[in-house]
Amino acid sequence: MKKSAATIRAEERNYFQSAEWFCTFTTHNIRGLEQEEGIHRRDPSSVILVGDTYYVYYSKSYGAHVGFGSGDLSAKVFPWDYSEIWVATSKDGWDWQEQNVALTRGEAGRFDDRSVFTPEILKYDGKYFLVYQTVQHPYLNRSFENIAIAVSDNPLGPFVGSSEPILTPSKDGQWDGDEDNRLNIISKGSFDSHKVHDPLLFHYNDKFYLYYKGKSMGEEIYMGGRDTMWGVAIADNIFGPYVKSEYNPVTNSGHETCLWQYDGGMAAFLSTDGVEKNTIQFAPDGINFEIKSVIPPNGPIAPGPFRSDEPSSYPLEGMKWGLSHKLNGWGHLVRFEINTRQTDIYRNRTKFH
Amino acid sequence: MKKSAATIRAEERNYFQSAEWFCTFTTHNIRGLEQEEGIHRRDPSSVILVGDTYYVYYSKSYGAHVGFGSGDLSAKVFPWDYSEIWVATSKDGWDWQEQNVALTRGEAGRFDDRSVFTPEILKYDGKYFLVYQTVQHPYLNRSFENIAIAVSDNPLGPFVGSSEPILTPSKDGQWDGDEDNRLNIISKGSFDSHKVHDPLLFHYNDKFYLYYKGKSMGEEIYMGGRDTMWGVAIADNIFGPYVKSEYNPVTNSGHETCLWQYDGGMAAFLSTDGVEKNTIQFAPDGINFEIKSVIPPNGPIAPGPFRSDEPSSYPLEGMKWGLSHKLNGWGHLVRFEINTRQTDIYRNRTKFH
Repeated sequence: MKKSAATIRAEERNYFQSAEWFCTFTTHNIRGLEQEEGIHRRDPSSVILVGDTYYVYYSKSYGAHVGFGSGDLSAKVFPWDYSEIWVATSKDGWDWQEQNVALTRGEAGRFDDRSVFTPEILKYDGKYFLVYQTVQHPYLNRSFENIAIAVSDNPLGPFVGSSEPILTPSKDGQWDGDEDNRLNIISKGSFDSHKVHDPLLFHYNDKFYLYYKGKSMGEEIYMGGRDTMWGVAIADNIFGPYVKSEYNPVTNSGHETCLWQYDGGMAAFLSTDGVEKNTIQFAPDGINFEIKSVIPPNGPIAPGPFRSDEPSSYPLEGMKWGLSHKLNGWGHLVRFEINTRQTDIYRNRTKFH
Repeated sequence: MKKSAATIRAEERNYFQSAEWFCTFTTHNIRGLEQEEGIHRRDPSSVILVGDTYYVYYSKSYGAHVGFGSGDLSAKVFPWDYSEIWVATSKDGWDWQEQNVALTRGEAGRFDDRSVFTPEILKYDGKYFLVYQTVQHPYLNRSFENIAIAVSDNPLGPFVGSSEPILTPSKDGQWDGDEDNRLNIISKGSFDSHKVHDPLLFHYNDKFYLYYKGKSMGEEIYMGGRDTMWGVAIADNIFGPYVKSEYNPVTNSGHETCLWQYDGGMAAFLSTDGVEKNTIQFAPDGINFEIKSVIPPNGPIAPGPFRSDEPSSYPLEGMKWGLSHKLNGWGHLVRFEINTRQTDIYRNRTKFH
């Protein structure tokens, strides 16, 4: 018997390891943040529990968008343009009550005067910290986007945003020509030369790990789609300075960041872009991620899992449920849940019926 | 600067190669084979063109199924149980007319007396050849399933089925106990010890290449889901004998077989199961497949692409359009089309709007 290229590859890459990281997902309608004509709600944060109440933060904006190039620099270009960050609460994770704006845009002329969006939440030292993406007016194809932080003593806010970004793109590429086209470049620069997106903050190893999605000037498309990757920036103090890891990028694929702590390391769910889309990965050091499972299509989109404070020996505990978004019609939030039915059938050697 | 595990992996595996094999898919309703109460239509063959008419073959069965273990050995266990193979025609690939049964089940006592299903079609030497899966009554969890061939001078039939299978499972595993449970085993045997499924036939390199999906006794679940893989069996004569390749399995992932000829080799679309689900692969020799692209979720399910007789320099020509199935409600057929919009935007450096 001889080995095919596929068999050799599977052996070298250890494809037939345990299914403990393998799962599927289901999504379910929730009450309170359903689809609503004229309003975008999207990019939910991780869900946190304070007392007996769950909190989630998300981008909220109003009205239709027209894209770039309309000739009106004030026109809304994306669903996440002119966004604010809102907060909702729930007692059971199913019935949600939208509460109030947690953080709004900065005053004219500030780095965050056009939009604040894709929030994440960290409960630390009795305070609540939002990290989020910012855009300054006017919003152009070549706009650089930043990441900022806000703090509050109360999970409902009011949150006070930082006066400067805590993370900025590397800007080390070079545009080609003056046309407002982000794909025309002389050089790309680093993986995050153009954008730092979708921040996610952990208190980890006595430091603060700020994960983010990077996009380069002149982003390209390859065999796995767009070359979107994640980086991490690390700080001793929660307000910074954040220093980008020398190991960046720490993924070669993925879109919205989604991570959870497990067994002293960091687990990640990667979707949408790159060869390693639809994988769950693990880095014992928070930096060096290896593929642990490849999940089927139809996983949650832009998921924000419930962050339990309880340690668990189950790798997927931190991804058991949460909120994600659906973008058909007006963007709205749904609940995702992990589904281990298939794994359970095989492990228990039960029959299909 | 240091390299993360993800960067090293991407370099070793050449993740950033050209996007010429990358695509997304759309699916569209067709007229004539839509969802119909009480009828399953599924697993369309490749689409062939004869004169000015397209032909497609598919599994058709009637009524609800109850699964295994109902106590009634005659009860329908799966949507593909008690199936026949039907043929439909179209002038434009959108409006389809269901014609007639192309091949029905064999007489009682034959290897194909319970169901004939998952057909594929090959036009060769002025004749039309169906290859398909068969089950013999009673249909149990531990039933072995075979592959057979049928021939007709006319694409509408009548097709005459072979009196014996042309491919059988290796049956080299060992069941544990007498309970009708396909997961209880002492040994698994080969990747196709239990089932040979989803045949797909090509005249290739002056021989006949019969690709198929294998399932082992005691199938397991791993980090990519079920350990489903494909094999190939090769014959000098179209009716056999078919000899399984020494290189089997030729994939380490995938579900329904879907392949097309390109540039002297064989291209394949793998979905559903295994670490390499949702990839398009290519084997210059029809045996040794390498990953050429990783596609997003929501590709076509059980696709049967249009088999053009025209050579093309575009790798995805043989996957440009075809029929696939949808299984929500009663199984029915839809049309899929390749979508290169994303690739085109990046290649042409046009802007998103």
